[in-house]
Formats: sequence, structure tokens, C-alpha cells
Amino acid sequence: MYETNETHDRGLTSWVESANDSQTDFPIQNLPFCRFRTLISGLGIGVGIGDQILDVSLCVKEGLLRTSIDHAVIHGNMNALMEISVTERAELRASISRLLSENNTALRDNPMARQRALLAQDSVEFVLPCTVGDYTDFYASVFHATNIGSMFRPDNPLLPNYKYIPIGYHGRGSSLIVSGHDVRRPVGQLPPAQDGGAPGFGPCKLLDYELEVGMYVGRGNRLGEPIPINEAEDHLFGLCLVNDWSARDLQRWEYQPLGPFLAKSFATTLSPWIVTMEALAPFRCPAFQRPSSDPQPLPYLLCDNTTHSGGVDLNLEVLLQSAKMKETGEGPIKMSSSNLRDLYWTPAQMLTHHSSNGCNMSAGDLFASGTVSGPTRSARGCLMELTWDGELDNPVPGTERTPIQLPTGEQRKFLADGDEVIFRGACSADGFRTIGFGECRGAVVPALEPAHQTT
Amino acid sequence: MYETNETHDRGLTSWVESANDSQTDFPIQNLPFCRFRTLISGLGIGVGIGDQILDVSLCVKEGLLRTSIDHAVIHGNMNALMEISVTERAELRASISRLLSENNTALRDNPMARQRALLAQDSVEFVLPCTVGDYTDFYASVFHATNIGSMFRPDNPLLPNYKYIPIGYHGRGSSLIVSGHDVRRPVGQLPPAQDGGAPGFGPCKLLDYELEVGMYVGRGNRLGEPIPINEAEDHLFGLCLVNDWSARDLQRWEYQPLGPFLAKSFATTLSPWIVTMEALAPFRCPAFQRPSSDPQPLPYLLCDNTTHSGGVDLNLEVLLQSAKMKETGEGPIKMSSSNLRDLYWTPAQMLTHHSSNGCNMSAGDLFASGTVSGPTRSARGCLMELTWDGELDNPVPGTERTPIQLPTGEQRKFLADGDEVIFRGACSADGFRTIGFGECRGAVVPALEPAHQTT
Repeated sequence: MYETNETHDRGLTSWVESANDSQTDFPIQNLPFCRFRTLISGLGIGVGIGDQILDVSLCVKEGLLRTSIDHAVIHGNMNALMEISVTERAELRASISRLLSENNTALRDNPMARQRALLAQDSVEFVLPCTVGDYTDFYASVFHATNIGSMFRPDNPLLPNYKYIPIGYHGRGSSLIVSGHDVRRPVGQLPPAQDGGAPGFGPCKLLDYELEVGMYVGRGNRLGEPIPINEAEDHLFGLCLVNDWSARDLQRWEYQPLGPFLAKSFATTLSPWIVTMEALAPFRCPAFQRPSSDPQPLPYLLCDNTTHSGGVDLNLEVLLQSAKMKETGEGPIKMSSSNLRDLYWTPAQMLTHHSSNGCNMSAGDLFASGTVSGPTRSARGCLMELTWDGELDNPVPGTERTPIQLPTGEQRKFLADGDEVIFRGACSADGFRTIGFGECRGAVVPALEPAHQTT
Repeated sequence: MYETNETHDRGLTSWVESANDSQTDFPIQNLPFCRFRTLISGLGIGVGIGDQILDVSLCVKEGLLRTSIDHAVIHGNMNALMEISVTERAELRASISRLLSENNTALRDNPMARQRALLAQDSVEFVLPCTVGDYTDFYASVFHATNIGSMFRPDNPLLPNYKYIPIGYHGRGSSLIVSGHDVRRPVGQLPPAQDGGAPGFGPCKLLDYELEVGMYVGRGNRLGEPIPINEAEDHLFGLCLVNDWSARDLQRWEYQPLGPFLAKSFATTLSPWIVTMEALAPFRCPAFQRPSSDPQPLPYLLCDNTTHSGGVDLNLEVLLQSAKMKETGEGPIKMSSSNLRDLYWTPAQMLTHHSSNGCNMSAGDLFASGTVSGPTRSARGCLMELTWDGELDNPVPGTERTPIQLPTGEQRKFLADGDEVIFRGACSADGFRTIGFGECRGAVVPALEPAHQTT
């Protein structure tokens, strides 16, 4: 478990003035990693500071920062950086913090170097922060699982394994994309109009977002060697925001017996920033308080650390802006807000469970949390929950089905072409600067014309 | 679709004498790719010929073979080789075939070069033939799906989507291992003794193999751009054997609602060889003959090519040798044999379906077929089918449950520690040399002691 230290000091300010703005996601207490590309410098590893990026690759090249893997860092190899020891990570964080501190002159008073090493965030192309070898999607919100379960299986919403197993499945790595890229509405098999009938084939009609948080693995484990729960936190590198775009009609028809497949693999959007476990130290919180009627986790998923501070107090929100809203100058509206602390399982429990059969993790592997929903209606993390099964043909008796009203007079049950979905996240705690996650953003573009579909 | 040409000529012989042996898997008509490592030359790309490997990386380095990606080939980058055009692949195959032909003197009559370029297969360490970016496991045998379905869901064995969708799920890439490595029995949550009870936690009791065939992707597609069925074959590089080791007790407890996870991700064994689509040309066969009561595939999965030659006539067999059989000198016994042509879906249909939502494939991605079972008892590709639910607590009424008898007097319902499982595959057709797939082999070693489990 990471401890709070001087890098979190509320009084710490930076010579990068925008970092001292009370509204920034990226004060000097945050220092999230990203990767970017510029025409001049090519692929680089950076750290967010105010509205700027500190080019860490360049700083290492010029001797302003040092690591045990300088060559890899200079060449933008984030995975190598994710694999260094927890001790070395803390040292790197401390040295970046010093380099950017108000009183440090090394860069501050060297205009030439400073100009090269600081890049405006709006001047670069962000790329995926690392190579994700394997991507796993969990299902760790009991509120989400109960809501979705009652729509897909009204008689059996929460399966008997849910309270014992951090349920997850392998996701598709190749279609992970970084925030800001459009998402094409997928085409696929649509459920038959009646039982026993033939499915349709065409553009997804029930396109949804899912508000999730991603956890990046730092140092991995060898095949056959499980990660004990007390060591799990040492293998976590940091968190990001994830939009697990979901084609609900494809999903409903395809998902049995082997789980979601094409309903998810057309695109998954990641925020460009990795907020490190070190930065999150002040915002750790107890694991979810299980109702007394629920079973305790099995011993391999229990530990003192996770009992007291296994969760993360991370506020999340979803915003939506339709094409018409953009045209008429209406800003995005808030769809919901929820908090990562409401997950039934902690990141450490997910990681330990995942490796309990000996499965090997590598630096850069990504776990998504599953949709982060809370106990209230305003904390539902996807449209399917918010509009309670939206346009599907078989509503659950007795449940309301409330379309979302947009300020333009438009209604939404699921996403329309042109809709842009924006996730934000921030951690706040008494006595600490608020740290943000930046944005995870994507707009829906129309499906391919039939001539370019696979027909 | 690949055409048969002079590289398949039955009369073609090689100056590598072992390639002319009628029993070899690797006559000059085969030329499967592999990757290997030696102390001297490091990582290399090779081609199997008789009991030898032609070091393709070295031949390119020394100018005996030429490609458009010489640098990548020299450095053992198989993925780059998999991405070249179908035309260039055919040219490379033809030039390798010429280099190894009886009458070609370039290597044959140069003892120094020949000694460096030919390595005995039993002298090298095989490694995974490429970097598998994403691994997908299908469920394409209707016989397997019906058998397993009737055990997991007796009232509903074959779900309504099966005959429309090539059902598949994302698998775990990190735990793919190459033939010859031991497989540790996984530990995990075991189903509760009675409904509503707590699960156990310990070594898997119902460990199984699954006989599968893997399909490697050659050139990929861009995100959002589906691969039409008529072009799908151009994106296939070749086939291998796959053992999708399965922990049936873990699987039964964890798999709903999101599919298999830890029951599979502890290890998946691949044969070292990729038998190319070019080599398989003489052994293509019509797609599965659906019963007239079955629906036709939707238009996006139908094409003239696949109607006439979408399948592959590939004979497969499973052998097993227990530790006691090894001690007493008993050779492996045959458990079952089946044929890839019995799959309900063709490789092209699986690929086109997988990309139909715009999901992007990359060179080196791997699709496994799912267990290849046939219509008869002797063609069941896993123990769970052969022993009909083996030791599970709830036998299907009216079904036989027949343990396997080993020549040592031992019985098997599922795998015991020390058991070695061996898959073999071969294609035969009138007028052609038989080509083989080599072996996919792995032995089960005991689970970690409890102190080293994640408890």
C-alpha cells in the first residue's frame, strides 16, 4: 500500500503556473503519465502538469531525470517504465515533483530547455499510454450487475457466484483506442423478432456506453505463480477512465453461453492519462461494506490492507452532448455520477483472483472495473440502466422506462449518431489538492453503408 | 483461395534425406514455419524439413533467400513475415522449395553453409512461432457444443444462436505456451457442494484437455473495416494444433454470465509449427453439410468459395500416456480421433464474423476452433465428452459414464498428475504426399502446495 508523502503536500506549487489553478486536473500533486507523438520529437512519455506535458523522455535524454531504464524511456517504451520496482517508481515521482517545484531552477530558469521539455497538451497527439498485452473486463459493481441481471435474466438477476468471485472476462486488446477518436456504430446480428426466428443483420440499434475505470498492471508475475493478496498492490501501476462501448442488441443475442464478444470488441476508449497509485495514496478508502447477510470473501481474497484501505474514493461522471446540442451551442449535460469506492471488489482482489490459477500478468496489462454504478438512479453508469432497458421489446413488468430529455428537446434511450460521450473523474479529500483524471471522450459516427458491410 | 501448384508435386524430393521418408510430417511439400532459439544464433525463423529445420533467418542473412522484409526475418520477427502479401508468401514458399529440392546445389553442395543452415529439430528450443496479440477461442464443432451443452444445460443443450453465429470468446494471450512445457494443475474456486452453499478453494479436480486447431491471421484489417467473406482467406496465414486445457470444476462455477475465464487462462499449449494455407491447398474440402432442417448462414457468411472448399480435411488424434505408463514402458494410447472438416463453421466464416463489427485483426492473432469433436463416440475431443461428465455430481439421467481404461490398469475420468497429452494432425489426399502438423504435447504437474497458493 502506498503512503502519503511530501509529493502530496497541499502547499506544494509549481513554476508551471497553470498547475496552481484550483480548477486543473493536474496539479503538481498528480503527475499522471501519458504517451504522445509530435512531428518533431516522435513518440514520447510525458507527465501532465497544469495544461502542459513535461516530456519525460526528453528530460531523461538530457540528464534532468534518471531511471534504471533510460534507453527505454527515451524511446517511449512505457511498458518498461511500468515494470520498475515500487521503490524506483516512488523515486521517479519524487524527482519529477522536484523538477517541477516552484523553487527548482533546473528547468525553470533555462528558457531553451524549458521550451523543449514543456508541450501544450492541446498541441500533441495522444496515443495509448502503453502497449496493452492483455485486457480483462470485470463486473465488479454489484449495483450494475443487479440492474443488468434483472433485465437479461429477470428471474435470476444476481447469480450465486457473484458474491464469491470477482466476475470478469477476457476483452479484446486490439480495439482499445485513446480518447478523442470517433467510434463507428457497429454492424452485426440482431436478435430475432420472435423466439425461434432468424436474426437480422445491420447496424446496432441499441448502442450504449459503460462508465468504467481501468487498472494498469505494473510488474507482472510468472506463469504458475499466483500473486498473494498482500502483495497485489505492488503489482498495480495506476488508473484511467474507460468507456466500454456496448451494442446491447448484439450482446443479448450472442452472449450465451460464452459471454460478450462482438458487442464489445468494436471499440473501447481509454483516457490518455495514467494516474499512478502513488498519486492516489491520499484517496484510498475501506473496501465496500458488505451487508451482513453477504458472505465474507474467501481467505485468498482477504487481507488486512484491503480491509482498511482497499478501495479508491474516485468520483466519476458521465456527460453527453448530441450533434444538435453542439450546433445550438448547448454544452454537455450530466447523465450520472458514481464513485469507484462502491465496487463490490477492490483492485487488489481482482488482481489476486485473476492470478489465482497461475495466470501470468505483464506490465501494461489492463483490467477494467465493469460499469461503475451506485445504489441510486443518478448513479447508474450506462444508458441501459438509466433508461431501464430503453427500447428493447420485453420490458420488465413494473419498471419505469424513462428516456433521457436533452435540452434541445431530443430524447435518448440509447446513443444516436453524432452523440459525444465524455467521462471525467476526480479524487478529493480534506487537506489535499483535488487530482483529476482528464477526459475519456468519443463521438459516435454512423455505421458503414450496407455496401461496405460484410454482406 | 490458394491453388495447388508445383510446390505440391508428389514427385518432388529433397536433398535433406529425412524429408523423403514416407513417415515424416515434414516432406518438402509441407514447409511449416517455426521459431527457435539456439545458444549460438539466438532467435530465428525456421522451416521444418524432415527431422531438420532450415534456418530461414540465416538463409536470408546470407542471401540464399530474399524477402521484402529481410531485416525483420533476420531478427526472428515472424509477425512481420505473416503480414506480407499472399503473392509474396507464395514466392517465398516457392523459393524455399527450390532451395531444398533434390537438384538444387546452392546449399546441398556447400557443406559449410549447409551445416550452419540446417539444425536438427531435437537440438533447438522451440518458442512460440509469433507474438500473439489477441487470442480468440471459437466453439465451432456442433457435436462438441451439443455434448457439452447437454451436460451444462440439460434442458437447453444447443442455444438458439448457435446455428447463426460462429460463437467465440476472447481468450488469454499471456498464458499461451509452446508444446513440451509442463502444465501446472490450477488452483481455484470449486463449486459449492449444494445449491446456495459456499464454494471451496483448492486444486482443480476435473482437469481436461480440449483438442483444437488454431488459425493464425496473416495481414490484418483496420479498425472499423470488416473483412468480407470473399476476402477472408487472404487474411489467413496457417494452422497449428492447440490444447485448450480446461478446469471443468472452476468453469462450471465461474462461467455465468460472462463466459470461461480462470478455467482456461492457466495455460494453452500450441504446437510449434504453422502449416501454411499454401501447404494446405490440396486438402481443402467443402464446408460442413448442414442438415436440411438447419438454417442457411446469413448472407455475410456465405460465399461461393466457402461453399465449395471452405473446410480443411485435417485428421486429428489425441494420445495419452500416464506417468505409470512411462515407467512401465507403455507407449501412449489413442483417446480419440476427429477431423477439422466436421466443424460447423469454416475458418473464413469465423474470421469474417469476428471482423463484422469492425474489430481489427493483426498479423499473428490466433483463433482456436474450439474442441474438434465428430459425430461418433470415438471422435470426442475432450475427456468431459469421452467419459460423459466424468466425476461430476449430477450425471445426466440415462447417459453412460465410462472411465478410460489404461493398459496399466489405471482408470481416467479426468487428467491425473503426470499424465502427458499429445495431439497430432495430418492431411492426406489421393495423389499428394501426406503433410503433418508435428505434435502438441504437455504433461500435467501437481498444483502448488497450499502455502504457495494465494491463501
